Amino acid sequence: MYINNPASYTDYYELTMAQGYFLSGKHQKSAGFDYFFRKIPFKGGYVIFAGLNELIETIQNFSFSEEEIEYLRKENFKKEFLDYLQDFQFKGNIYSVKEGEIVFPTEPILRVEGNLLETQLIETLLLNILNFQSLIATKAARIKLAAGEGPIVLDFGLRRSQGLGGIHATRAAMIGGFDGTSNVYSAQRFDVPAGGTMAHSWIQSYDSELDAFQTYAKYYPDDTTLLVDTYDTLGCGVPNAIKVAKELEENGHKMKAIRLDSGDLAYFSKQSRKQLDDAGLGYVKIAASNQLDERVIHSLRTQNAPIDIFGVGTRLVTGHTTPALDGVYKLNSVDGTPKLKISENIEKITLPGNKKIFRYCNDDGTFYGDAILFDQEKTIERMHHPTFPAKKSDVTSREFEDLLQPVIKNGRIVSNLPEVKEIAKYAKQRLNLLQPEYKRLENPHIYKVGISTNLMEKRDALLKLFKS
Amino acid sequence: MYINNPASYTDYYELTMAQGYFLSGKHQKSAGFDYFFRKIPFKGGYVIFAGLNELIETIQNFSFSEEEIEYLRKENFKKEFLDYLQDFQFKGNIYSVKEGEIVFPTEPILRVEGNLLETQLIETLLLNILNFQSLIATKAARIKLAAGEGPIVLDFGLRRSQGLGGIHATRAAMIGGFDGTSNVYSAQRFDVPAGGTMAHSWIQSYDSELDAFQTYAKYYPDDTTLLVDTYDTLGCGVPNAIKVAKELEENGHKMKAIRLDSGDLAYFSKQSRKQLDDAGLGYVKIAASNQLDERVIHSLRTQNAPIDIFGVGTRLVTGHTTPALDGVYKLNSVDGTPKLKISENIEKITLPGNKKIFRYCNDDGTFYGDAILFDQEKTIERMHHPTFPAKKSDVTSREFEDLLQPVIKNGRIVSNLPEVKEIAKYAKQRLNLLQPEYKRLENPHIYKVGISTNLMEKRDALLKLFKS
Repeated sequence: MYINNPASYTDYYELTMAQGYFLSGKHQKSAGFDYFFRKIPFKGGYVIFAGLNELIETIQNFSFSEEEIEYLRKENFKKEFLDYLQDFQFKGNIYSVKEGEIVFPTEPILRVEGNLLETQLIETLLLNILNFQSLIATKAARIKLAAGEGPIVLDFGLRRSQGLGGIHATRAAMIGGFDGTSNVYSAQRFDVPAGGTMAHSWIQSYDSELDAFQTYAKYYPDDTTLLVDTYDTLGCGVPNAIKVAKELEENGHKMKAIRLDSGDLAYFSKQSRKQLDDAGLGYVKIAASNQLDERVIHSLRTQNAPIDIFGVGTRLVTGHTTPALDGVYKLNSVDGTPKLKISENIEKITLPGNKKIFRYCNDDGTFYGDAILFDQEKTIERMHHPTFPAKKSDVTSREFEDLLQPVIKNGRIVSNLPEVKEIAKYAKQRLNLLQPEYKRLENPHIYKVGISTNLMEKRDALLKLFKS
Repeated sequence: MYINNPASYTDYYELTMAQGYFLSGKHQKSAGFDYFFRKIPFKGGYVIFAGLNELIETIQNFSFSEEEIEYLRKENFKKEFLDYLQDFQFKGNIYSVKEGEIVFPTEPILRVEGNLLETQLIETLLLNILNFQSLIATKAARIKLAAGEGPIVLDFGLRRSQGLGGIHATRAAMIGGFDGTSNVYSAQRFDVPAGGTMAHSWIQSYDSELDAFQTYAKYYPDDTTLLVDTYDTLGCGVPNAIKVAKELEENGHKMKAIRLDSGDLAYFSKQSRKQLDDAGLGYVKIAASNQLDERVIHSLRTQNAPIDIFGVGTRLVTGHTTPALDGVYKLNSVDGTPKLKISENIEKITLPGNKKIFRYCNDDGTFYGDAILFDQEKTIERMHHPTFPAKKSDVTSREFEDLLQPVIKNGRIVSNLPEVKEIAKYAKQRLNLLQPEYKRLENPHIYKVGISTNLMEKRDALLKLFKS
C-alpha cells in the first residue's frame, strides 16, 4: 500500500467538507469527479499516466485508524461524524485509462463515481499519487527517447529525490522506460533491476587509484565498473582502468565499464574510448553521469559521444524544469446533474457530466486524436476543439478505442494490477504508436483532443445559465 | 522513524563497496565524512539546515531485516558479509550544526566518524533526508520573509508534492517559518497546526453559491473561510460572502475570511477588500492562493494587495526553480590520514581532514562570517577565501560560536531532539541574526565563508602531491 494512514494523508478541507455533507444529510447524494491535467510538463507533447496501482490498492484499503479518529476528535469534529468515519470504506466506482497510457491535457484520465462524501475524501491522496508518478514516468520516457535505442539508462536519483518521493520516482522511471536503478528499496519493492559499483570515496580510501581498482576487480571480476575521474581521468584514471582490464582478461574475465562523473562528457568519452580501443578493449563500455537530462543526453548523442550507459539522477527524480504535473480533480455532476466550474481564468473552466475518452487511429494503427464525450454516447461523428468550436474533425470512419475501463466497482478492485515491468512494456508499446512529431524535444506537435458536439452544447448551455 | 527499512533505502553501490571493504578486511579502518552543499538554491543567500532529527533517529535504529538480507543473498552478496550485516548497527559518531541553523556553501554542516563500512553505508539515506528538508525549509523561509511580519503563510502543497515527499515537505515548511498546513498527516505526526475549509466542489455541489456558503457557515460559524471565485468573484462571490457574514453577525459570530484562487490577485483582493469594508466587514480577512511563491508574494506586497493569508502549494513543496539541494557526502580521512578528491571540475575539489565551523559575530550579535578549520584547532587568527587565498579576514578579536556539536556518540543519540515548533523558533532567531543583505530576493550579498591557514596549507600540499 502507498501509505499506512491514507485517510489522514489528505488536506484538512476534505474532512471539513465531508463533515459538512454528512451533517446536512447530503453525503449520500451521488457524485462524479474527473482527474485531468491542463498543461504538459517539460514543454513536451505527451504525458505517461502512472501511479494507478498504488491508488487503487490504497483506496480499497482506505479506512480511519483509532488514532486518526482521536486526532479529529481533538480538532473538534463532531461525534456523529466520527462514528460514521470509524466504519468508512470507499464503496464507489473508478474508471481509468490503463497505467502506462499516453494521455493529453483536458482528458478525464480517471473518473470517480460514488457518494459525495467518499468521492470528495479521496481527492488529495489521488492527486498526490497520480500527479507525481505521471510526472516522472513522462520525464523518464523523454530521457529514454533522447538516449535512443542503444544505450542503457539508469536511475541514480535517490540521494537528491524529494524525500520519500524517491520510492515512487524509481517506480515511475521504470514505467517510463528506464533499464534499472541504484535504489535498492524500490528495486526490491517493485521487482525491478538494481545495480551500482563504486563512489569516489572507494578510490580515495586507498593509497593509490590502481590499488582501489584492483581490489574492486578482485571481488567483482564480472561486474566491474571503474570510476575514473577521482584524480585525473585521462592521465591516470583510464590508464589504470586499462591495466585492471588486462589483468582481468588474464584471469578469464571481462571488465564491464568505466564511469565518467565530471568534466566535459563529450570530450572525455571520446578520449577514453580511444584509449580503451587502442588497448584492444573495445568491449569495455563507457558510463556517464553528472547532471544529465534529456537535453544534455540529446546534445551528447548529436556530438557522437560514445556513451553506452547514462546514469541520470536529480533531474529525473525531481522532474527538473517542471517539478509538478498540474493534475486536478473536479466535480462533474451531483445526482446526475452535470456541474461546471467557471473561475476567473478561462483555462480553468471544466467539462460537465460523466465522460469517457475515445482514441481514434490512423490506418497504420498510430494515434490520430482523442475525443472526450459523454459516457452514454455510443459513437460520434465529429469532435470539436474545446475552445475554438469552428475547428473540428470528422471521425466517422476511424477505428477507435474506449480508453476508460472500470478498475474499482463498489469499492472492490475489478482489474488486474500488472507488475511494473508489464506496465513499462505497455507504455513502450503505446509510445511507439505516437508519431515522432509529438515526441520531439523542441516544439512538439500538439496532439488533437476534441470534445463531442453534445458535450460542447451542454457546456455552453451551462455557461450561458451563469452568464444570464 | 523516517522509513521502516532504512538499510535498503540506499544506492546499490553503498552495499557493493561495503562488501568490498569487508572482504578485504578494511572495514574496521576509521573514516570521516562531511556533508556539505556547493550551491545555494533559488539564487538565494542562505540555507536553513533541516532533517536532522529524522536522520539521527533513523540511524540509531538502522538495521537489516531478514527480508533485506534475503534480497541481497539473491543478488549474490556473500554469506560472510550477510552474516555481518545481520548484526549490523551504526556505532560511530555524528557531529552536526543544530537543526534550523543558517548554513552556507562548502561548510561541513554535519560530520560522520566511524569505521569505513558504517560511515559509507549511511550515505544515501543521509543525503536523501537532509537535502530535501533543507531545500524546503529554505524555500519556506524565503516565502515567509517575502510575506512580511503581518500575513499568515500556509502550506497547501500535499496534492502536488513529489509523492510521499509531501510528508517532510510540510515538516520542513514549518521549520522555515510557515504558520500552518493543510496536510493532516504531517500535522498529526509533527504536532503542528492544520486547517482548511472548502474546495470549489463544495460550492458546485449546491444549486446556488449562496446556499453553499450558508450551509458551510451553519456548521462552522467560527471558522468560515468562503471560496469566492467559483462563478464570478466580484459579481456574486464576494456579495454572497457579505450576506453570509451579516447573517453570522446576527447570530453572534464573525466570519473569518474569503479566499481568492484565480484571476489577478492584486486587483481582486483590492476590490474585495473595498466591498467588505463598505459593508462594515473590516475584520473579514482575505486569503489568496494559486501558484504563489516568494516572488509573486513580494510583487503582491509591493502592489499593496490587502492579502492577510497566503496559501502556498506546489512551488513551496517542490522547491520550485531549484528542486534539489546539491548536498554531497565526501570522505575526508581514513585512519587519521586526510583525504582529498580532485575531480575534473575545480568546484568539486574537497577539503581534507576532520573539520569544524566557527561562526564569528559582529558587535551587535549579527553574523559576520564563518570559518572552516581543523577539528583540533583551538582558535585561528585569520580565514582565507577557499579559492582566492589572497582574500582573507582577520578574526582575532571576534566572538565566535563552535557550530558542530555531537548528536550521536558510539551509535547512541546524545543530543535532545527538539519538537518542530522549537526548531522553527531557533531558525527564526538565527535568521534574525543574518543581516538583511543576505536575505534579499535579488542578488543577495554573499556571506563570508573562509578556511583556516592550516586547512588551506594542508589542502594545497595534498593537491601538489597529485600534480607531481
